[in-house]
Amino acid sequence: MKLLEDKILTDGVVKPGNILKVDNFLNHQIDVAFLNEIGSEFARLFGDKKINKIMTIEASGIGIATIVAQHFDNVPVLFAKKAKSANIGDDLYTSVVKSYTYGKDYTITVSKKFLSTDDRVLILDDFMAMGSAMNGLIDIINQAGASIEGIGICIEKGFQPGGQSLRDRGYNVQSLAIIDNMDNGVITFREQ
Amino acid sequence: MKLLEDKILTDGVVKPGNILKVDNFLNHQIDVAFLNEIGSEFARLFGDKKINKIMTIEASGIGIATIVAQHFDNVPVLFAKKAKSANIGDDLYTSVVKSYTYGKDYTITVSKKFLSTDDRVLILDDFMAMGSAMNGLIDIINQAGASIEGIGICIEKGFQPGGQSLRDRGYNVQSLAIIDNMDNGVITFREQ
Repeated sequence: MKLLEDKILTDGVVKPGNILKVDNFLNHQIDVAFLNEIGSEFARLFGDKKINKIMTIEASGIGIATIVAQHFDNVPVLFAKKAKSANIGDDLYTSVVKSYTYGKDYTITVSKKFLSTDDRVLILDDFMAMGSAMNGLIDIINQAGASIEGIGICIEKGFQPGGQSLRDRGYNVQSLAIIDNMDNGVITFREQ
Repeated sequence: MKLLEDKILTDGVVKPGNILKVDNFLNHQIDVAFLNEIGSEFARLFGDKKINKIMTIEASGIGIATIVAQHFDNVPVLFAKKAKSANIGDDLYTSVVKSYTYGKDYTITVSKKFLSTDDRVLILDDFMAMGSAMNGLIDIINQAGASIEGIGICIEKGFQPGGQSLRDRGYNVQSLAIIDNMDNGVITFREQ
């Protein structure tokens, strides 16, 4: 998506350690009009998949998922929560996610009552690198017996294995911008 | 807001300890069309305040703030983050929030670059009870020298002191539904 690539180049900031900060429009301050452009693009990519639920994970995925849902006939958004206590009831699906950013694992939860075999799910998130959060969501959707109709990512770090691994497993992963290299602060996008 | 009160009565579940679960439309699964109704109502209540930024706190406020922003000419949304490490840079505003639900304090952060004396802020959140999170946001907005033009809450627990305390301090607090009593699972709304 040319518009997103341009926005990354003008507004993004590359920090040491291959960190890309897009917190002025995507995941801290949110440009709502721009999210609607992203919503149009995801609708173009997944509009024929009969999506009836959009799933993401707290926190930065929520704004994206909510705006994008408007481009899918206002289907419900369901976000996985990060467990705040070890006291987890049996009315929840859970999965353990490895966090490379913070160096420890955490548990995500989804209420069983909101996910069933009838659901045709589009998973959305702001970033994908190792794909850990994505694998946690996939695990939960599989536990529920729902079908995964697509995975939409705003920015994929193509030099990390998450996206390729999911594509190799047969998932329809569509990333609006794939960064193949950002060494020395120079961003190179993959041709799509 | 009659529509929200009705939705709470039909879809909400009262749990022991004065807990109201509205996770099927507001803060786990999200009814996006309904959030747009909430957006219209907040626009009616605060539309003349020249709001140029909407602030909330992760996670459940984000979906609400993002949809509501569309009813305020797509002003930027800025959400305070819950600090994940003690390693906080000096480019952040911080405030400590007491959590009654989880029994421990946490720190919220906002990048200094996204909040300034030019900002006329509308604060939004899904729930207010003790008002702890709200006070953390107010603290941060005051540190930045921005002005607080209003506080919009979806569901206020009127039998807890947060809302009254903020009104006594002169804030323009508008709650779309105020629950005065929910003993024995029977919800009584305040006349507004």
